[in-house]
Amino acid sequence: MAVYTDVADEELAAFIATYDIGALLSCKGIAEGVENSNFLLHTEAGYFILTLYEKRVDPNDLPFFLNLMQHLAAKEISCPTPVANTVGELLGTLAGRPAAIVTFLEGMWVKRPRPEHCAELGAGMAALHLAGADFAMVRPNALTVGDWRPLFEQCGSNSDRVQAGLSAEIEKELRHLEGRWPKDLPTGVIHADLFPDNVFFLGDELSGLIDFYFACTDAFAYDVAICLNAWCFEQDGAFNVTKARALLNGYTKVRPLSEPEYEALPLLARGSALRFLLTRLYDWLSVPEGALVTPKDPREYLKKLRFHQGVESVKSYGLDL
Amino acid sequence: MAVYTDVADEELAAFIATYDIGALLSCKGIAEGVENSNFLLHTEAGYFILTLYEKRVDPNDLPFFLNLMQHLAAKEISCPTPVANTVGELLGTLAGRPAAIVTFLEGMWVKRPRPEHCAELGAGMAALHLAGADFAMVRPNALTVGDWRPLFEQCGSNSDRVQAGLSAEIEKELRHLEGRWPKDLPTGVIHADLFPDNVFFLGDELSGLIDFYFACTDAFAYDVAICLNAWCFEQDGAFNVTKARALLNGYTKVRPLSEPEYEALPLLARGSALRFLLTRLYDWLSVPEGALVTPKDPREYLKKLRFHQGVESVKSYGLDL
Repeated sequence: MAVYTDVADEELAAFIATYDIGALLSCKGIAEGVENSNFLLHTEAGYFILTLYEKRVDPNDLPFFLNLMQHLAAKEISCPTPVANTVGELLGTLAGRPAAIVTFLEGMWVKRPRPEHCAELGAGMAALHLAGADFAMVRPNALTVGDWRPLFEQCGSNSDRVQAGLSAEIEKELRHLEGRWPKDLPTGVIHADLFPDNVFFLGDELSGLIDFYFACTDAFAYDVAICLNAWCFEQDGAFNVTKARALLNGYTKVRPLSEPEYEALPLLARGSALRFLLTRLYDWLSVPEGALVTPKDPREYLKKLRFHQGVESVKSYGLDL
Repeated sequence: MAVYTDVADEELAAFIATYDIGALLSCKGIAEGVENSNFLLHTEAGYFILTLYEKRVDPNDLPFFLNLMQHLAAKEISCPTPVANTVGELLGTLAGRPAAIVTFLEGMWVKRPRPEHCAELGAGMAALHLAGADFAMVRPNALTVGDWRPLFEQCGSNSDRVQAGLSAEIEKELRHLEGRWPKDLPTGVIHADLFPDNVFFLGDELSGLIDFYFACTDAFAYDVAICLNAWCFEQDGAFNVTKARALLNGYTKVRPLSEPEYEALPLLARGSALRFLLTRLYDWLSVPEGALVTPKDPREYLKKLRFHQGVESVKSYGLDL
């Protein structure tokens, strides 16, 4: 659930008055996202989302995220568009936190994606990659191969409390990836967190992408690998090759993958699985007793990692190359 | 926070299809209310609230609540209006729970009400009482004087864990109220839970009343007494007589209070304070370790009870009678 901050009435009204969106008619905290506080606003000018950035977001990164959304929206990628205030700024302050107002996006995320959704996701992600090509700002990925070992070291021997032998397994995988991580793949703006809850659909059609707060400059194929993990496994842990094929075909119809990108995909998928295994492990071990938020089970990503360890080529992802 | 139930995509779409409100464009869980799961829906026909009734609401009471809202809305009380499905029913089933769709109401609740808000509340409550006069259904108050002792007995000696001597203090108050509780006051539909978060404003004007899930048939003046407690004390526990005067004057301009109602008000205020003290005490003692919801502090209502114990007449509420 995601309303961490209470906002005083007068302060909210004063904040809204710094925008050219008319008077406030309604403001409801919404149960979406886990990093920030989100409110659905209705004003005389329409519907908007107000986000208060909580402490897990680095304020220095916000201009990148907000300018990116503005850039993408101008290129007709359907995503929340930041609204500038009356002095032209995308970022303000509310309740002591950085705060932004973005446009409201229709659509709903799909809890059990089907291959049709994966195909739409692939195409939408490829369009995002193309649209970001001339975005001028750069933000290195803060959760890529070089960041995983420090994260792992913070978990330390506690990892084995989650599953016996986990420490050794992660250590071995880290060594494998650190020696082989590709450096020369086509690079640009990636979303880096395109999980189903960040992709809206109306019926079977993709209606928008949200939550750009992990977006960064990295290999496009790594974004694809993240989605293979996030979209193409069943609840029981089984890999669904039909969904993977749909995702990859959807992607390549809009932006073809190069030979080196295809070849790197199994390794990138292992890396992406390890990245989410490690962040979930860290969160799992950091949650205080009796906390309000139930962390996600890191073992889901251990299973995914093991699957990709057994993959020899993209044929396992449903492609006949 | 209040989204207790996850609804499957297909099930939600099928449910919406039983209403004549067009296709679903957006559905967001909202962080409002504590008893039920609430979602803000946008469909081709507009904005609505979808409520899933969780286990604290007795399904047998739902027809009373929904028909009441329909009745009041028809009398131009601004409140959520239940939307009938294509076979004319106000109540359906979703995710195994009773579910209803009501119209979306503009406005925001006021976290720190001022006397102007109290005056509006008084007038709005009186209008509600008048509008309910010819509502045909009856629902006895399930949390009135006769229900307090059983609730207290369930708390037992644990009460003293909350505050030393609390048990004895409640026992004494119960005996006082049980012997004197008025039976012949003007009676009709009351809201019975008109706390600030159930009253919406646009600017200083009341724009609507929500959350009728404690509404029942009881003395009108008891509703007034509940509001004296809920609206007229400051954060530090001090009674604000200016707010009380505004509330009572706002009320009586629309529906005059009779002599017996005025006289009963201090006793009804004691009873109302005890009712919320007891339900909060019960919740406080029932919450399991590490629960998601922080219960409200019962001692707030102990302070309010003590204030009214010292009141001799409605003069203490700011009226010159």
